[in-house]
Amino acid sequence: MTNSTLKYGVIGYGYWGPNLVRAFNQASGSKVIAVADRLTSNLAKAASLYPSIATHEDTAAIIGDPAIDVVAIATPISTHFELAKAALLAGKHVVVEKPLCASAEEAARLVDLAAKMNRQILVDHTFVYTGAVQKIRSIVDNGDLGKVLYYDSTRINLGLYQRDASVIWDLVVHDLSILMRLVPTKPDAISAISVDSLGIGVPAIAYVTVFYPGNTIAHIHASWLAPVKIRRVLIGGKKSMIVYDDLDPSEKLRIYDKGVELAPDPAREYQLKVEYRVGDMRAPQIPSQEALAVMAQHANTCFTENTPPLTSGEVGLKIVRMLELADRSARENGRVLRVESW
Amino acid sequence: MTNSTLKYGVIGYGYWGPNLVRAFNQASGSKVIAVADRLTSNLAKAASLYPSIATHEDTAAIIGDPAIDVVAIATPISTHFELAKAALLAGKHVVVEKPLCASAEEAARLVDLAAKMNRQILVDHTFVYTGAVQKIRSIVDNGDLGKVLYYDSTRINLGLYQRDASVIWDLVVHDLSILMRLVPTKPDAISAISVDSLGIGVPAIAYVTVFYPGNTIAHIHASWLAPVKIRRVLIGGKKSMIVYDDLDPSEKLRIYDKGVELAPDPAREYQLKVEYRVGDMRAPQIPSQEALAVMAQHANTCFTENTPPLTSGEVGLKIVRMLELADRSARENGRVLRVESW
Amino acid sequence: MTNSTLKYGVIGYGYWGPNLVRAFNQASGSKVIAVADRLTSNLAKAASLYPSIATHEDTAAIIGDPAIDVVAIATPISTHFELAKAALLAGKHVVVEKPLCASAEEAARLVDLAAKMNRQILVDHTFVYTGAVQKIRSIVDNGDLGKVLYYDSTRINLGLYQRDASVIWDLVVHDLSILMRLVPTKPDAISAISVDSLGIGVPAIAYVTVFYPGNTIAHIHASWLAPVKIRRVLIGGKKSMIVYDDLDPSEKLRIYDKGVELAPDPAREYQLKVEYRVGDMRAPQIPSQEALAVMAQHANTCFTENTPPLTSGEVGLKIVRMLELADRSARENGRVLRVESW
Amino acid sequence: MTNSTLKYGVIGYGYWGPNLVRAFNQASGSKVIAVADRLTSNLAKAASLYPSIATHEDTAAIIGDPAIDVVAIATPISTHFELAKAALLAGKHVVVEKPLCASAEEAARLVDLAAKMNRQILVDHTFVYTGAVQKIRSIVDNGDLGKVLYYDSTRINLGLYQRDASVIWDLVVHDLSILMRLVPTKPDAISAISVDSLGIGVPAIAYVTVFYPGNTIAHIHASWLAPVKIRRVLIGGKKSMIVYDDLDPSEKLRIYDKGVELAPDPAREYQLKVEYRVGDMRAPQIPSQEALAVMAQHANTCFTENTPPLTSGEVGLKIVRMLELADRSARENGRVLRVESW
Repeated sequence: MTNSTLKYGVIGYGYWGPNLVRAFNQASGSKVIAVADRLTSNLAKAASLYPSIATHEDTAAIIGDPAIDVVAIATPISTHFELAKAALLAGKHVVVEKPLCASAEEAARLVDLAAKMNRQILVDHTFVYTGAVQKIRSIVDNGDLGKVLYYDSTRINLGLYQRDASVIWDLVVHDLSILMRLVPTKPDAISAISVDSLGIGVPAIAYVTVFYPGNTIAHIHASWLAPVKIRRVLIGGKKSMIVYDDLDPSEKLRIYDKGVELAPDPAREYQLKVEYRVGDMRAPQIPSQEALAVMAQHANTCFTENTPPLTSGEVGLKIVRMLELADRSARENGRVLRVESW
Repeated sequence: MTNSTLKYGVIGYGYWGPNLVRAFNQASGSKVIAVADRLTSNLAKAASLYPSIATHEDTAAIIGDPAIDVVAIATPISTHFELAKAALLAGKHVVVEKPLCASAEEAARLVDLAAKMNRQILVDHTFVYTGAVQKIRSIVDNGDLGKVLYYDSTRINLGLYQRDASVIWDLVVHDLSILMRLVPTKPDAISAISVDSLGIGVPAIAYVTVFYPGNTIAHIHASWLAPVKIRRVLIGGKKSMIVYDDLDPSEKLRIYDKGVELAPDPAREYQLKVEYRVGDMRAPQIPSQEALAVMAQHANTCFTENTPPLTSGEVGLKIVRMLELADRSARENGRVLRVESW
Repeated sequence: MTNSTLKYGVIGYGYWGPNLVRAFNQASGSKVIAVADRLTSNLAKAASLYPSIATHEDTAAIIGDPAIDVVAIATPISTHFELAKAALLAGKHVVVEKPLCASAEEAARLVDLAAKMNRQILVDHTFVYTGAVQKIRSIVDNGDLGKVLYYDSTRINLGLYQRDASVIWDLVVHDLSILMRLVPTKPDAISAISVDSLGIGVPAIAYVTVFYPGNTIAHIHASWLAPVKIRRVLIGGKKSMIVYDDLDPSEKLRIYDKGVELAPDPAREYQLKVEYRVGDMRAPQIPSQEALAVMAQHANTCFTENTPPLTSGEVGLKIVRMLELADRSARENGRVLRVESW
Repeated sequence: MTNSTLKYGVIGYGYWGPNLVRAFNQASGSKVIAVADRLTSNLAKAASLYPSIATHEDTAAIIGDPAIDVVAIATPISTHFELAKAALLAGKHVVVEKPLCASAEEAARLVDLAAKMNRQILVDHTFVYTGAVQKIRSIVDNGDLGKVLYYDSTRINLGLYQRDASVIWDLVVHDLSILMRLVPTKPDAISAISVDSLGIGVPAIAYVTVFYPGNTIAHIHASWLAPVKIRRVLIGGKKSMIVYDDLDPSEKLRIYDKGVELAPDPAREYQLKVEYRVGDMRAPQIPSQEALAVMAQHANTCFTENTPPLTSGEVGLKIVRMLELADRSARENGRVLRVESW
């Protein structure tokens, strides 16, 4: 371990923490040297897998450890703000599970604090680091898709009801992070409809619409009450269209050379003046590296060079703002709410 | 041909008219004796296939023919009202292509007129007569589905832009007719978002939400701009869940013995008090008769007995009311509109 | 109808005959002027659809009609030889349903007779005229596939037991005709295993293997006893691989840029010296014209110019020879039989 | 750890060994106390994951350890015989990776030795312990399938060429082990065709046919040269038919209430005397436990009670006999070979 190796402390070793420990241990340029969790049973698991890692019940032992460069937070959302704030104040870079915070106000304060402390925040919006989303981004960037007309996502399955996140904060958040990569302009407005089908105060179905300038629209159907699991996004561009099926083991992306265009002949009367283009479909080979490993490597680079990650605090803040607006719209029965701050 | 055989006159022999002629000719108890169309080329086709059928350029020759019992109308929507009105006034029963009329006001006047004339209107909402929808209806009726929690439809493909119908009047109308069979209670409200992606004044994408009492929701995604064709409806009930894929050649319906229930133990704190039930899936064999043939036979029965069809004028009127509200909501950017008349 | 229009007489108006009448009537350059069938009920159907076509119970009325240029035969296989022989002797070109004859000996006599009479035989191996098979052929021709390593077909469904054709003559015949286009060299040998699962003297399952020079192999699994319908062919080449799913409505062909190659490094010991290449998949747009219409047009061209069709008598003879060998191998429990004549 | 806990020593910690260590450590009633491997790098991995496990470069340290009850062997096939023989002679029970040995002669000697030593051999034919195969077995057992008419397996993908196993020993072995559960009677004969498409002395494609008494047939298509991965078995019975798709994440088994029967009416002449029955499809919920865990638990029970496992040495021997015959048939170009010993 050279001086240039980043030392990570991971807070939270429940569901996702073990993945972070593994990822930062395997990435080149980083090592996890300490783990904290309230449950000694979780710490015992960490100790048995990684005998050399220090384990603590108290998060202060991590945040206060001067040997630690980065604090990675994998705890319930409601605790993100206090933990990240303390870590930034202690001069650490921060990796935090998505979403960044439970409110835009908290998220904005973290972003400000990081700037003041000259440290970086990376929000673990894992989908951004998948080969599929990176490929779609490159297709958008190189102009092969043309103007984005729509983004339509179906992200449904049976369960699991979450205790600290509605279906919007649990599932729609993924699409919002992908959208930040594909349509990075400020949306005009958001509306959301949610349904508490069981009448237990926790909506299990949501339909969220994001309105962008120039008639571009994004729509996300999220549900914990579907009999089948679907993770499918349609992305329509002026020049081609993409079907992104995250569950397809071999062909996650299908790029269709299809489109509709105004016909040049304005004289046609009976038929509409549209023409269809139907060409080949192509399923590009997608690098099979694990998204988490890509994120970990990217984190190490950004922290070493002190440059903002793809999923920086600013990006995480914008996503939390949209989640908040979606929640508010859903409470107001789908009222369309303008996006003001960005 | 006995006295009890219903004699049909068909107006419009373009895209759908030929199917109506074939269906009513093949159904027991009916014969098509005349066809009208403005285009002599269309009439020539009818004459070559059915030498014994009279052909007319003028619709009056059909409406005024005392030998004709039923007038079937397969013309552009804007003409439905005048033709149906004339036919009812002439004492005929009426079959009319979906949707019934271009406005709820017109539709209501036809319903009133039919009552006054003691005649029946059948709107050709063909999906209602498919084996799949009849099977779903029977599952709802016998209680196997339990309370309907949601209906979620994806009805998308590439094209065809219609000249006299938006994507709502062209595609969403199918789901509204199916919903009338499955959730016949009055909806509370409707909202719709539509997008004119090409900027030509014709929306090609629509998201329509129908709110029912008791937290039941229906959502329909319709599009002429999708690279793939999907015709899939998810129907979630308290006791089981259905996936209805109209494009699956062998298993259109899949019934999942799956559900979510409140757990009996109220003491659990950390986890939500929900329990999942995951059992077998069953794909029932569905009778393969053609929906159009079922509709034709049903029409003959209803007209002979002078009883209202499943897709009566009243049903057609309610659907047109919902289409109108959806249109208005879409123009108002998705505002939720209460359903008043029913 | 000009002098250059070919006049067709069609013998057999049962299952397939109506399709031939429609196809040759719609093709440019041909007209069906007479139909023969033993059943007057079949003739009545023809007369009602095509009032101008002459109908006969006796095939001699067609074969002996000097106005007729081409006789198309859609009768049971056992009758093909006598009808085609008479037609050729009468100086007609012949279209005959697949397979050409019930035996190679008969088929060879027809081929000789056609040569002597300077007339053409076209066997209606319809698959050869599909857009998919034509596309595969072009991929083989332009070298994109590389050397054909294997052809593996699964052609199974439930029913229908045929009265005058085993599952080999009913289903495997399609693959043999496709193979004639893709691997036109003489096969070395054939073996076949068939199973009479119901014990009624009619095999319902067959596995047929065709051995080509240079380690190229074709294998066909045909069955009338499968619960699902599959029509899928895998074609492996040195440079790419194809999956041809004839039931896929939108993407019948998928071309995989995948392969296995010997590794350049001969020093590797523990691992085998093979390397995998895994690239993009491409589903080319396939022209949607009906195969039957393409065949009819091709027939008209070949008969007008007196040139051999793609599915000439010679090709049909080779296919019958393979069918005969397959039958014999199956009777001998799968013994590998050399292909001698070709 | 009580006296009744079985102590395992695992030989081979390369590809599969780690899974065995995990499985026997997690199963109730067993512990892995030692691991042997020739490579110190593999031993280091074991030591880091399981600090309490002893690691040895020499297998004798395991076989000679009186504290060890069971030796589990996860080494190349060619070494199975010597290792298993030594372990049995030392009074251990044996778990051995599939296939049991490289030859039937070796396998028979192990079976004899186990009987003499009063010890059990369990061959790790993992598929036998999957929920899917156990479910199929129960459907066969309870009579719902009726007489098995055919078993048809497609087990193909791209790679991986194995160094010590042909495609028959690598892939077909799975189907032979499943067949032993579903059709346990002695097969009459076997034939196999294999193709060395790359010309490197290693067949990459094989078609194996197993002939059972009473017209029951099994056919297995195995390939390392397919562009797509397929793991699909069709099982046809007199009363129902099963599609077993091992890659389907949610519905591995589909049971079709379909069949063909002789029609009762012997008078029908033109049509064959068969009738089709087409009913519902059912996809039973399958327990999601890991096959390896089921195997480990079963091993512990069998070794504790000294009773033969489902995949005993006798079963493993019969499978090796079939593999040997298949190899010989393939070398003789598909000659049908009678199964003599059983």
